[in-house]
Amino acid sequence: MTGKIRIAIDMDEVLADTIDKFIVVYQRDHKVDITLEQMHGKEFHELLPDKLNDSWRDYVNQKGFFRDLKVMPGSQQVVKDLCAKYDVYIVSAAMEFKNSLVDKYDWLEEHFPFIHWKNIIFCGNKIVDTHIMIDDRIRNFAGYNGRKLLFSSPHNFLVSEYERVNNWAEVADKLLRE
Amino acid sequence: MTGKIRIAIDMDEVLADTIDKFIVVYQRDHKVDITLEQMHGKEFHELLPDKLNDSWRDYVNQKGFFRDLKVMPGSQQVVKDLCAKYDVYIVSAAMEFKNSLVDKYDWLEEHFPFIHWKNIIFCGNKIVDTHIMIDDRIRNFAGYNGRKLLFSSPHNFLVSEYERVNNWAEVADKLLRE
Repeated sequence: MTGKIRIAIDMDEVLADTIDKFIVVYQRDHKVDITLEQMHGKEFHELLPDKLNDSWRDYVNQKGFFRDLKVMPGSQQVVKDLCAKYDVYIVSAAMEFKNSLVDKYDWLEEHFPFIHWKNIIFCGNKIVDTHIMIDDRIRNFAGYNGRKLLFSSPHNFLVSEYERVNNWAEVADKLLRE
Repeated sequence: MTGKIRIAIDMDEVLADTIDKFIVVYQRDHKVDITLEQMHGKEFHELLPDKLNDSWRDYVNQKGFFRDLKVMPGSQQVVKDLCAKYDVYIVSAAMEFKNSLVDKYDWLEEHFPFIHWKNIIFCGNKIVDTHIMIDDRIRNFAGYNGRKLLFSSPHNFLVSEYERVNNWAEVADKLLRE
């Protein structure tokens, strides 16, 4: 542990494009077409036909679901640059889905090899002692006293009460240039 | 998350008897007999013959190593009682060994089924925002500002600068009766 300012960075919808994976598997398996535009202010599963409403849990419980997610554009370079200035922790609420643990570990090792294992946290509630948190879920900001950066994701488009970053270029603007 | 006082409880040597497993596997595989008495103030691997010195890493990297550890005496009932009074988090530095993740998850589910997944944290550095930490490793107390309870384990027998608990009955005395 260093004396640097600590940042907690979420994985799903922030480093990893989980929604893209949902769109692909529902198109492939159920011929259901859901677009990002339809999702504004909604969770992906809210747009599914009733009979498929809970099926997203089966997908995320499958081994491999989280292993081949696309990397969010620009995230690798910006996180690498953040590591030079800050003490960067990757903090994922992975514990809800046991089969995600190893997939997420391997995914980070492949795409963010410069993140040391000491800086990875898989949890439920994000009770981390960091100064900044970048997350797309406002529930993770509850009870958190640091600076909260809401990373834009379709489901949070209608939320207005937090400092927002729309993409990794905006994270760089806020945290690497100020 | 509740308004209760939060406690972080370690797994290895605190809830799970990792040393017992080392003693058993080295006796079985290498006919090396190491006793708890020999270990006072030392790490288990320091007592191994030179040629086996690093072999403990191979064991802990094996799938299954952490799955059948014995439960530390009294821990289940005391942790259950703590959960009624405190917001209890199980915090393990599991991230060093990828294959330990699922084993530790399953072990907790079997022996501590009353711990919700939201209250499990697998990490490297323990940067948790809790009021109390129960741990056998003083390195986890570095930079931690809460109350530190050093859980006795042979390797820490010579450490004197922390409040110490020798067993789960003493944890109960300190945290359930005061």
